[in-house]
Amino acid sequence: VVNLTGMEDSLPREEGLSSLFYPRSIAVIGASTDPKKIGGRPISQLKTLGFPGAIYPVNSRHTEIQGIPAFDRVSSVLGKIDIAIIAVPTTSVVDAIEECAACSVKVAIIFSAGFAEIGDAGAYLQKTIKTIARSSGMRLLGPNCIGVAHVAERTSATFAFAMGLPTPEGPLPRVALVSQSGAVGGIAYALSTFRSMIFDPWVTTGNEADIDVADCIAFLAKDDSVSAIATYLEGCQNGDRLKTALEIAADRGKPVVALKAGNSEAGAMAAVSHTASLVGSVLAYDSLFAKYGVCKVTSLAELVDVSHALAIGSVPMGRRIAILTGSGGQGILAADAATERGLEVTPLSAAAQKRLKAIWPPSSVGNPIDTTAQVTNDAGLLKDFLDVVVEEDHDVIVVLLAYLGMMSPWSDRMLTAMTKTRESHPDAKIIVSVLATREVQNALARLHIPVYEELTSAIKAAASLVEIGEAQERWRSRVPVDLRTTSAPILVERGVLTEQAAKRLLSEAGIPVIREVFVESSEAAALAAEELGLPVAMKVVSPQVTHKTEAGGVVLDITSSEDAANKYHQIVASVAKVEPEANILGVLVAPMITGGVETILGAKIDPILGPIVLFGLGGIYVESLNDFSYRVAPLNFNEAAEMIRDIKGFNLLDGARSRPKADLNALASALSHLSILAAANSKVIESIDVNPFIVLPEGQGAFAVDALVVGSPSATA
Amino acid sequence: VVNLTGMEDSLPREEGLSSLFYPRSIAVIGASTDPKKIGGRPISQLKTLGFPGAIYPVNSRHTEIQGIPAFDRVSSVLGKIDIAIIAVPTTSVVDAIEECAACSVKVAIIFSAGFAEIGDAGAYLQKTIKTIARSSGMRLLGPNCIGVAHVAERTSATFAFAMGLPTPEGPLPRVALVSQSGAVGGIAYALSTFRSMIFDPWVTTGNEADIDVADCIAFLAKDDSVSAIATYLEGCQNGDRLKTALEIAADRGKPVVALKAGNSEAGAMAAVSHTASLVGSVLAYDSLFAKYGVCKVTSLAELVDVSHALAIGSVPMGRRIAILTGSGGQGILAADAATERGLEVTPLSAAAQKRLKAIWPPSSVGNPIDTTAQVTNDAGLLKDFLDVVVEEDHDVIVVLLAYLGMMSPWSDRMLTAMTKTRESHPDAKIIVSVLATREVQNALARLHIPVYEELTSAIKAAASLVEIGEAQERWRSRVPVDLRTTSAPILVERGVLTEQAAKRLLSEAGIPVIREVFVESSEAAALAAEELGLPVAMKVVSPQVTHKTEAGGVVLDITSSEDAANKYHQIVASVAKVEPEANILGVLVAPMITGGVETILGAKIDPILGPIVLFGLGGIYVESLNDFSYRVAPLNFNEAAEMIRDIKGFNLLDGARSRPKADLNALASALSHLSILAAANSKVIESIDVNPFIVLPEGQGAFAVDALVVGSPSATA
Repeated sequence: VVNLTGMEDSLPREEGLSSLFYPRSIAVIGASTDPKKIGGRPISQLKTLGFPGAIYPVNSRHTEIQGIPAFDRVSSVLGKIDIAIIAVPTTSVVDAIEECAACSVKVAIIFSAGFAEIGDAGAYLQKTIKTIARSSGMRLLGPNCIGVAHVAERTSATFAFAMGLPTPEGPLPRVALVSQSGAVGGIAYALSTFRSMIFDPWVTTGNEADIDVADCIAFLAKDDSVSAIATYLEGCQNGDRLKTALEIAADRGKPVVALKAGNSEAGAMAAVSHTASLVGSVLAYDSLFAKYGVCKVTSLAELVDVSHALAIGSVPMGRRIAILTGSGGQGILAADAATERGLEVTPLSAAAQKRLKAIWPPSSVGNPIDTTAQVTNDAGLLKDFLDVVVEEDHDVIVVLLAYLGMMSPWSDRMLTAMTKTRESHPDAKIIVSVLATREVQNALARLHIPVYEELTSAIKAAASLVEIGEAQERWRSRVPVDLRTTSAPILVERGVLTEQAAKRLLSEAGIPVIREVFVESSEAAALAAEELGLPVAMKVVSPQVTHKTEAGGVVLDITSSEDAANKYHQIVASVAKVEPEANILGVLVAPMITGGVETILGAKIDPILGPIVLFGLGGIYVESLNDFSYRVAPLNFNEAAEMIRDIKGFNLLDGARSRPKADLNALASALSHLSILAAANSKVIESIDVNPFIVLPEGQGAFAVDALVVGSPSATA
Repeated sequence: VVNLTGMEDSLPREEGLSSLFYPRSIAVIGASTDPKKIGGRPISQLKTLGFPGAIYPVNSRHTEIQGIPAFDRVSSVLGKIDIAIIAVPTTSVVDAIEECAACSVKVAIIFSAGFAEIGDAGAYLQKTIKTIARSSGMRLLGPNCIGVAHVAERTSATFAFAMGLPTPEGPLPRVALVSQSGAVGGIAYALSTFRSMIFDPWVTTGNEADIDVADCIAFLAKDDSVSAIATYLEGCQNGDRLKTALEIAADRGKPVVALKAGNSEAGAMAAVSHTASLVGSVLAYDSLFAKYGVCKVTSLAELVDVSHALAIGSVPMGRRIAILTGSGGQGILAADAATERGLEVTPLSAAAQKRLKAIWPPSSVGNPIDTTAQVTNDAGLLKDFLDVVVEEDHDVIVVLLAYLGMMSPWSDRMLTAMTKTRESHPDAKIIVSVLATREVQNALARLHIPVYEELTSAIKAAASLVEIGEAQERWRSRVPVDLRTTSAPILVERGVLTEQAAKRLLSEAGIPVIREVFVESSEAAALAAEELGLPVAMKVVSPQVTHKTEAGGVVLDITSSEDAANKYHQIVASVAKVEPEANILGVLVAPMITGGVETILGAKIDPILGPIVLFGLGGIYVESLNDFSYRVAPLNFNEAAEMIRDIKGFNLLDGARSRPKADLNALASALSHLSILAAANSKVIESIDVNPFIVLPEGQGAFAVDALVVGSPSATA
């Protein structure tokens, strides 16, 4: 059942990517003398950047382009070519690719559009160039992309205008960006230049005929000069490759911030009618991000805000936030935003409060800490207050300074205070919200202090940093599931399993199942009822009967063994009447359960991202609110426990409203085992629904009461 | 029971506010020669603005201040004084106020801090100045505020630095701002200057010893030069005044955008243990905003974004949005954001799609409409595409142009296209997302095109405009509840009502109650059971027994009249044993109900905002998720219907998952009647809980099964 080609494809391919991000020579096919044209812009940008390598303009109608000797064709170039930019009409791309492949070009970057994005004809063309490239070992970026840039290496192979935007002098704080969309990548770069940083290295992957987001993330995660990676993605063709890339990033402690687009189906999702179909691709990506600790953002602004924090600041080690403000209003808004994101606005120590009161008696010294507007008259106050607050054990300090960065002398005084604090406390995690001139923002960035115009953005960025830190800690301490050493059973049946077979599979996989007895006679039913303890429930076993209750195949609350015997006959008769074609194998007898919380465990194989597990509380209301959590399988116990905590209604399992705390250990264990079962059978299982899965109070266990397992129609043993 | 002083106070006081917003003369007590000092800044700003009225610096140590003749005391000023700014040490404020009152100053603005915000001593001082002002008819702004400005009238009485920030030449689009916090008001003003608009008139109310947010909103809502009002508020002392102010604004079609701070208790709210305590003040404000169609925002950035849209653009009449983009990625992100906010990304007509395909075949023409990057080569494409899209019946068009506004010639070409479209379609609702220079932003503003750096902000602002339009339409078409003409019964009992009394009250108020019979003997119980139809439920009636089930006072599913007689004795015996002190009045017999959806209706009197009603679905899960909606009472039928739709689980009432649609008319009618009951009894009722309120399928009605009414302990008939 294993596709070997698929296996090979499941690893990111990094060959050629050093040529893409660290090129020593760049050819431009379709080079233009006009620096504003697509074929002219890369040359002009390389000159501006002072690219230290060779530039080879290729254009048969000119001997020189923008002051650089031009070549009539690629084969005329004598040196090795790391990157060949292809900026020619779509109809000439195949010829250009063939020429590049023949000349051992390392990477061809195809700006031209008119490929898979326009339909079948374009897809054919795309397949053609991919085949040429694969057979020669040349890598392709694009088509329909706008290229790559690595400003720190003074290299650029893009026609994005954004690369021409002014940035401050000197080496800038950087976060790598991998974007499937050229325009979104360009906007993100432009926004970053306003924020004392740049997205660098910067790459757009377009149609991904060859090089994809996963390849780039994997390569950049291993690059020591890259500390964090931002990505914009709309989808991926190979989930395993993306998983491996994210795993490499997580292993190396490189935060990944992701903006996933194409979620509009979210609305449609609400309309789906049963649990098994709830795991759509949007949720699959959420599952993936949760698994690998990817910081998910929902807008370009947030992508830039979090990247700014990662580029300039550092990751706090906990959730305690100190809010230092010059006005009550800012402090309240910040406390609201911090609480909303689960940060802990814990008060300063009594000693610190006393020290602050001594410095300026009218101040508020709990948390938020309010210097009062006196800080605008006496900038020394900011320094004095900061000195006290940085000594506290809060994990991050957010300082709210209104618009003090807009004008002298206040901006100078603020910078002086910040500089002194940074000198005495080089590792303090400080974030500032202030309206400031570009110069003041740059000065703060040089002090490793991220700065936000608006305080809610500052708090949200702080929260994202905290969450990234937590995800990193979880990743470091996790014990990964190794599927090869688990004893998960392998499914050998096709189609829908009987309830009995389904439960046996779950049981073998380590998921506790309600104790029940399969009987084939009324006598056996009576005996089973006695043995299990009364009252019992009885349920028909028949592969053809999917709606057992409707067929009269379920009886609850049977209080005597005689009645159990009678009900056996009743069930068989009723089902035979309602579904005459059904093959009735027998009846299950099980104890009636009271107490416990109904939950739903599920697994489904996403076509791209593979096995996903689902968890939620039982009942129609839950389903209508879509209060489920999702993760990519397999999960270890701790990951399963986190996933359980992710649902909004978690407090119902955690002893809310004086209810007994549920047996969360039993639940997490079952969910982890289910995830391993799904992962081990991802080629032969379509879906697993355990509904209800009853969780008894702490220490009393949990078990599946009903289960539906659907094997893949194409499954083979 | 009616406090006449309270009645008087329930109307916003507008006397003196024309002097505050349209002053002809301004005195500055504590005037400074230094334009950077608090007492110097207003004078310097008035000079910069070219204030056409009289400026009277008051300072006994100078004969001239900043080139203007100074006075040694207020009484030396010969002319009338509209505004007296008090910028003196706290200890001198009372003297200054007395002097101003004696000189018939219209409004005194107190910059000084050290009043109610610092505790009891300050509160006493504040009460003192309030008393002086009230007795003379002088109004007070502050203390602890940073003043007022009305740039369009060339007047300013503030020490906010923000007022000194540069703005474009000429009259600017404006939205009024009323802020309780000076710093937040200042930041908002500063942010607005970057957005081709200003917050003007602009007022900060500080401690609100006299003039409060409600007074200012009411005055500004009646000012024809004001088209919309933004407000930052942390709370209010008089809910009736705020309600009246918001009603005035709604009546005049002036949108109000509110940033309410101090919501951090939201986290704590989750922990409350029963329904009646769920209506805290945060929810009370939400209820208020929902009632009066106030646009609630959750950050300063959003306050500015929505205000920008209101100042520069206009309100669309529906939810259909057309997204015109130059790249797929931007379009997908925008469609995600639009769907998330409930906007309808409906396709263009077939004819329009055909026209666009004819213009540029590679374009995508459904919605989002994607010109492809060709728009960067051929700006005519933007104009041609816009021409087609504006002719469609979409309500709002959002155009996504990456960073085309950053550089020539693309920015010029974009402006040309926009100008031509605006000329031919002066009323088209167009919003642009583009990174642009300040000049380009101002040019778009002059075309009445709101512009956003980031596309998600653009979509959110569009959605807010749409919601404002819908709220205005609902307000226009609403039939207000007039409490004087309703027949709501008036409660004359104190404390906790018996279930019987509670249900009688509900029934009299027009809320259907389950048919049930009160019996005082086992014989009567048997008769009642027969008459009502079996099976029945029985429940003890005793004012002392609040937990009836625990006391053995409830029996369900009684299937014979003999059993009803037996159960009568059983209930009485059990309750007498468990609660020996209880006075057992009798037993209620009621039919058992099956089917229908359990809901919860509630009402509570918020100490500030008065009667609030609550609606949610029944069950512990709902409570744990806090899925309730709230409104300020009273509500008419339509408002109640909206409120029902506001809960997340609404689809369970609306026929989701093949369930029968619930009788929403009966539900809305009951909720409206409950709101009227609560409003009519707001002085004598503490809370009403109707739980469960069963809603049967459409056409079959709904009724209260249990009810708890708590009369105010201080209630008098």
